[in-house]
Amino acid sequence: MALIVMKFGGTSMAGSERIRQVAGRVKREVDAGHRVAVVVSAMAGETDRLIGLCREAMPLPDLAEYDSIISSGEQVTSGLLALTLQSLGLRARSWLGWQLPIRTNEGHSKARIASIDTEALRAALESGEVAVIPGFQGVDESGRVTTLGRGGSDTSAVAVAAALGAERCDICTDVDGVYTTDPRIVPRARKLDALTYEEMLELASVGAKVLQTRSVELAMKEKVRVQVLSTFSDLPGTMIVDEDEIVEQELIAGIAYDRNEAKVTLGAVPDRPGVVAAIFGPLADRNINVDMIVQNVALDGTTDVTFTVPQTELDRARRILEENAAEIGYARLVSNDAVAKVSVVGVGMRSHAGVAVTMFRALAERSINVLAITTSEIKVSVLIAEEYLELAVRALHSAYGLDRAA
Amino acid sequence: MALIVMKFGGTSMAGSERIRQVAGRVKREVDAGHRVAVVVSAMAGETDRLIGLCREAMPLPDLAEYDSIISSGEQVTSGLLALTLQSLGLRARSWLGWQLPIRTNEGHSKARIASIDTEALRAALESGEVAVIPGFQGVDESGRVTTLGRGGSDTSAVAVAAALGAERCDICTDVDGVYTTDPRIVPRARKLDALTYEEMLELASVGAKVLQTRSVELAMKEKVRVQVLSTFSDLPGTMIVDEDEIVEQELIAGIAYDRNEAKVTLGAVPDRPGVVAAIFGPLADRNINVDMIVQNVALDGTTDVTFTVPQTELDRARRILEENAAEIGYARLVSNDAVAKVSVVGVGMRSHAGVAVTMFRALAERSINVLAITTSEIKVSVLIAEEYLELAVRALHSAYGLDRAA
Repeated sequence: MALIVMKFGGTSMAGSERIRQVAGRVKREVDAGHRVAVVVSAMAGETDRLIGLCREAMPLPDLAEYDSIISSGEQVTSGLLALTLQSLGLRARSWLGWQLPIRTNEGHSKARIASIDTEALRAALESGEVAVIPGFQGVDESGRVTTLGRGGSDTSAVAVAAALGAERCDICTDVDGVYTTDPRIVPRARKLDALTYEEMLELASVGAKVLQTRSVELAMKEKVRVQVLSTFSDLPGTMIVDEDEIVEQELIAGIAYDRNEAKVTLGAVPDRPGVVAAIFGPLADRNINVDMIVQNVALDGTTDVTFTVPQTELDRARRILEENAAEIGYARLVSNDAVAKVSVVGVGMRSHAGVAVTMFRALAERSINVLAITTSEIKVSVLIAEEYLELAVRALHSAYGLDRAA
Repeated sequence: MALIVMKFGGTSMAGSERIRQVAGRVKREVDAGHRVAVVVSAMAGETDRLIGLCREAMPLPDLAEYDSIISSGEQVTSGLLALTLQSLGLRARSWLGWQLPIRTNEGHSKARIASIDTEALRAALESGEVAVIPGFQGVDESGRVTTLGRGGSDTSAVAVAAALGAERCDICTDVDGVYTTDPRIVPRARKLDALTYEEMLELASVGAKVLQTRSVELAMKEKVRVQVLSTFSDLPGTMIVDEDEIVEQELIAGIAYDRNEAKVTLGAVPDRPGVVAAIFGPLADRNINVDMIVQNVALDGTTDVTFTVPQTELDRARRILEENAAEIGYARLVSNDAVAKVSVVGVGMRSHAGVAVTMFRALAERSINVLAITTSEIKVSVLIAEEYLELAVRALHSAYGLDRAA
């Protein structure tokens, strides 16, 4: 008899009929002898509706009131799921964030969980009751409702699983697992049976939006075994676990990409100490996230500095660089937003040489020019012209042997 | 500088534009130097929508979950009003039922308020902050959310006013006060400047649905001065106060009516001890509310017993009486649902004879037959054929001099 946490997203909770399917799924776990705590999102669209009402009341709303308002969506779905479980003959009750409580800091609209009191929850679960917990919400020290930020229900679920020492945390969603790449680009993409937390973080941060990044970080820190699977099928999903748990480690877990990239080049920057700080300091101060950085020193004592920023931040970044032109001392500012990043991710590359070479060869064979390269322990990323993105992803997917058998 | 409680109903809270009008009204009281606590309902239609979702989940829902779900409507509007007040430059915050707390018993879906902790509330009000309190909700001893039953926000408002010792409790609604009778029947009905709690109870219970009955009972018990007035006009409304406060007491406060009446006559019931209990005991056991009762003893030692029940309960009442026919021993059961009750209400009749005579004369002049009569200290009610209802109300309104000058 295992204790498991199941989390259902907004699409799974969208309306009475779907909630009934969710309840059926929970019942199967209970019937299999498990203790089950369920974490739920608001109905799809509800949080946006509530945020819209807040902004109509006050364009930049007081975040304590905002949290109290938008947390109501999960309050409703947690109650509805408890009722639906009861209608199937199970014992079930909802536990609001302030009832457990789930304590957070006071960072309204993006609070961090400090602790979860599991005493009452454990007693309820041990008595055979299903506990239904609204995701996304907590309560701060002064007794006001907080929320955890977009996608926070994933984090709630992982935190509850960690606090309970659960066997695993099932994230039930509208996809049936984590894929080797985007199946819309590569129809022969494979669902992964398992990958490591680190791989999931790299895949998520470069575009595979299955799980909130914070929830994966928390799972990694607390060693919570997470499964991503479909609410509406009974097939096993993808396990996200510690590296030690994966018996047959593949070299590459997947190919990720990000279209939201823009390239900025500062030409003929004087090659002197402090110039890099002069470029990136003002951008960091204004919260512009710089990703890839390439620097080439020329023979004449100047250097070209190339880096990427999110496409959506390009105009702001250009303005900031122009304001600081005198201090940096560059000759030219050139930008290009028709670029994209493609990344090969896998913990296996730690122990295998040649991963990057395979990548460069595969791209060269398709005459795809590499504009910039960055590497980490478990990832190689290249910047290419955006028009080659699909071609590059398909080429790499094949080159690393990830294609599903036809 | 007075402390006042203002309550706004669902129509007043229905959407951002109306909430802005409500906020403007609250601001005028604050600008006038008052301390203001506001009690709000859910947006019109929202509670019904949530109840619908509960019933889809479980036809007879667990009432603890039901309360947690349906209380969310007021949670949202209290936050939205706090935000809107802030956008007008006021300091404001919402206080949920569990945050104050408003303690109730455990009677989910129809809980009764046990106590309101006003310490934090008073401190907030004294600092000049507007307190916004969701109506309808509280928390029981085990820390679960409760609701007070339909129209419970009126009761919340009066209870908060009582706990704070407020100067008055303004119930801001979509009518501009309490009228001498229904203006749809008597266009020259007058808005009353003031009436007593007792009069309001009689008027409310016979059809003038302005305030929840429980809230008036609570106001009477706690001597809370209540004003009924329009959210969307600045005219004074109707004060509902203790009898002592009304300087020039009118004889009659108003004419009420109730179409939801049905008359039942049991013919030739044996005139022996216990027969009345045999009739009304089984009805009471099944929660059927018997209103007017008339009994005539005939010379042959039998008696005809006539009484009224709500029209909506007539079929059930007939079935119960038929089941108990042997024990009661009546010869005939006759019913008529084409009847209505008209009542003249006024505390002035305590000290004035002749009130009932005026009523009977006015009805007789229009050839309206009286089917039954009941009286209380401050009310005379007659049962008449429903087709004469409007005529009777107009005749009585004129006979007691209630018509507004043309």
